[in-house]
Amino acid sequence: MDIREEALKLHRENKGKLEVISKVVVNNSTDLSLSYTPGVAEPCKEIMANPELAYEYTVKGHMVAVVTDGSAVLGLGNIGGLAGAPVMEGKCVLFKIFGGVDAFPICLNTQDVDEIVKTVKNISPIFGGINLEDIAAPRCFEVEKRLIKELDIPVFHDDQHGTAVVVLAAIMNALKLVDKQIENVTAIINGAGAAGIATAKLLLSAGIGNIILCDRKGTIYKGREGNDWSKEEIAEYTNKDLVKGTLADAIKGADIFIGVSGPGVLNKEMVASMSKNAIVLALANPVPEIWPEEAKAGGAKVVGTGRSDFPNQVNNVLAFPGIFRGALEVRANKINEEMKVAAAKAIAALAEENLDYDYILPKAFDNRVGAHVASCVAKAAIESGVAQLSIDPDKIKEKMLNK
Amino acid sequence: MDIREEALKLHRENKGKLEVISKVVVNNSTDLSLSYTPGVAEPCKEIMANPELAYEYTVKGHMVAVVTDGSAVLGLGNIGGLAGAPVMEGKCVLFKIFGGVDAFPICLNTQDVDEIVKTVKNISPIFGGINLEDIAAPRCFEVEKRLIKELDIPVFHDDQHGTAVVVLAAIMNALKLVDKQIENVTAIINGAGAAGIATAKLLLSAGIGNIILCDRKGTIYKGREGNDWSKEEIAEYTNKDLVKGTLADAIKGADIFIGVSGPGVLNKEMVASMSKNAIVLALANPVPEIWPEEAKAGGAKVVGTGRSDFPNQVNNVLAFPGIFRGALEVRANKINEEMKVAAAKAIAALAEENLDYDYILPKAFDNRVGAHVASCVAKAAIESGVAQLSIDPDKIKEKMLNK
Repeated sequence: MDIREEALKLHRENKGKLEVISKVVVNNSTDLSLSYTPGVAEPCKEIMANPELAYEYTVKGHMVAVVTDGSAVLGLGNIGGLAGAPVMEGKCVLFKIFGGVDAFPICLNTQDVDEIVKTVKNISPIFGGINLEDIAAPRCFEVEKRLIKELDIPVFHDDQHGTAVVVLAAIMNALKLVDKQIENVTAIINGAGAAGIATAKLLLSAGIGNIILCDRKGTIYKGREGNDWSKEEIAEYTNKDLVKGTLADAIKGADIFIGVSGPGVLNKEMVASMSKNAIVLALANPVPEIWPEEAKAGGAKVVGTGRSDFPNQVNNVLAFPGIFRGALEVRANKINEEMKVAAAKAIAALAEENLDYDYILPKAFDNRVGAHVASCVAKAAIESGVAQLSIDPDKIKEKMLNK
Repeated sequence: MDIREEALKLHRENKGKLEVISKVVVNNSTDLSLSYTPGVAEPCKEIMANPELAYEYTVKGHMVAVVTDGSAVLGLGNIGGLAGAPVMEGKCVLFKIFGGVDAFPICLNTQDVDEIVKTVKNISPIFGGINLEDIAAPRCFEVEKRLIKELDIPVFHDDQHGTAVVVLAAIMNALKLVDKQIENVTAIINGAGAAGIATAKLLLSAGIGNIILCDRKGTIYKGREGNDWSKEEIAEYTNKDLVKGTLADAIKGADIFIGVSGPGVLNKEMVASMSKNAIVLALANPVPEIWPEEAKAGGAKVVGTGRSDFPNQVNNVLAFPGIFRGALEVRANKINEEMKVAAAKAIAALAEENLDYDYILPKAFDNRVGAHVASCVAKAAIESGVAQLSIDPDKIKEKMLNK
């Protein structure tokens, strides 16, 4: 059976991938009187008196909403919230398996920014965090910005920041292998959607020397005709020398290529024009911007893709489960740059001991990852002052590893 | 430890009562490629081509939203969505345990009708049904009416219809014991909120002779000063003789008293003024309108309450899990009067074989109830033309009993 048939069968036979179960036993009237009336009135009254106690008495402290408007689902494009549901359920599965976080899919049937923001705010009380998913750029930036401002729980657009975190981790380790310093390198990011722009921002936070973003029209620079506000904004901080031209023009002499675009936009000759010991992360899925063997033939020293069947898979699952788990454990009210950088460093550190050209990132099923990321993110949250609880990060790791 | 402490401990130690788990195994890259990328694209594409397939490939076919605005939670009143969360989680637990239905709490932080309706519509794609809960009257009527009209999945306000269904079941069996026909009896309903008005409507559907509704100001009749639209509407069909006065006035000679109001509004003398072999359902919780011994002393022949520590508990859990399960199994697009009456008859039938003054309803933990209600409701849905699937109702019962 091919993967297409197998995937359909799996979804059909299980009727979706999630189940909501009870953590309490209800076998008799006594059980019922504690979990439901009249006993349930007690936690209600406690929460009414002090809303913070929702974290103690309800699922809020471990429940994340996976929210989509279905406008940019995988490589499928704008398929809407309902058709995006299998992806959102899948994301919830990954939250649970890799981070021990409960997550529930919220598949919207609106794609209007105001409506999305209002709806998420309206349903937010039961959730400890909001993971935005597969919302098209530049709408995703506005939705995220407004929700971060208006909610007191973490809001995180994984397509942006999850990707950015893992890319940063990959680059940190790749730079060690080629013996270059992040301050001195130039990266080309091809693709200026959610992932591209967020990756640029996080690399800037990490102190990268220079970044040039490209989209279908070529390099992005300040004042370029047709820039939307998100491109104009990132142009403030990137492409310092106002390089104009195509990707092929821009990539000459660059140290790093990061593709978050589409298949085949990079070729051997373009890689050959990069600086010595080039790093190529070709993340388009399922067909990358360049196949690894071709990139190597062009002289790339370290090559990563988004695929599990090649070395160095850049996979968000390394980041988001642990990031949310860490944020929830210390009740962070946001996920800030410090926490994202801490997550990247945590991921990079796990691969460092066996670092190799074909092993710059831990594997998705390395069960140390979620726990290590969570504890490092919790620590960064505490140190950067966004945590409401001060929990020993080692305790978090221990708890997760012993699960 | 008292119930208060025990309930708090239970909620605190479990950190809420629900957990979202994965129904699929994800142990390696192959698993991941089926449940998530790239395999997950296949069910997405199928649903995009035919939205009905969401029932096959996602949780939609077995997932209910338990929606509240927290405006009328238990006896606690308007405590808001967040503080109402323990009740909503409890409801989800009951859905799972008594009906095998997955349910998720949606605790709103708005109490505006338009906002509630819009929000529920916006998040509806992943759900197969909407259970409205603890929303104050008359707002609840409008919210329900609009959602029923605008959504193609069942929308059911349990405080109204769940109560009405179980009351009807109780009355059906009680009337058998006192040998009266429903067409010939007069019922007094004290309390004209969500439960009172819905109970009146369902009793009318079942052909009851006459109903007089009372609220704090006494009997409700057409044109009474201060009637809101919901009271004016129900007055069209009730209190045929335009009886004016207090509950004490109205109850004289009545056959049935149904209290969905508050503690202590009924006394022995008032019961004594009712017709011979009176039926008293005093459902205020935890303190009923009259204690059973007092009602009996006043001459009531059959007495029920909402409490589990007295005979004849009128408990919604007999109704809503099976009603939703039945509706979901045959993909009914609404829960109509036929289905509600079928549920009441199904509940009544289970108690009929051992019918007694102290046993007019099956017990909450009688595990036949959910399955029997679900199959009868599914049958009624098929026969009344609101089901999209024609499944043998016996198969549904069998499946549930074998779980």
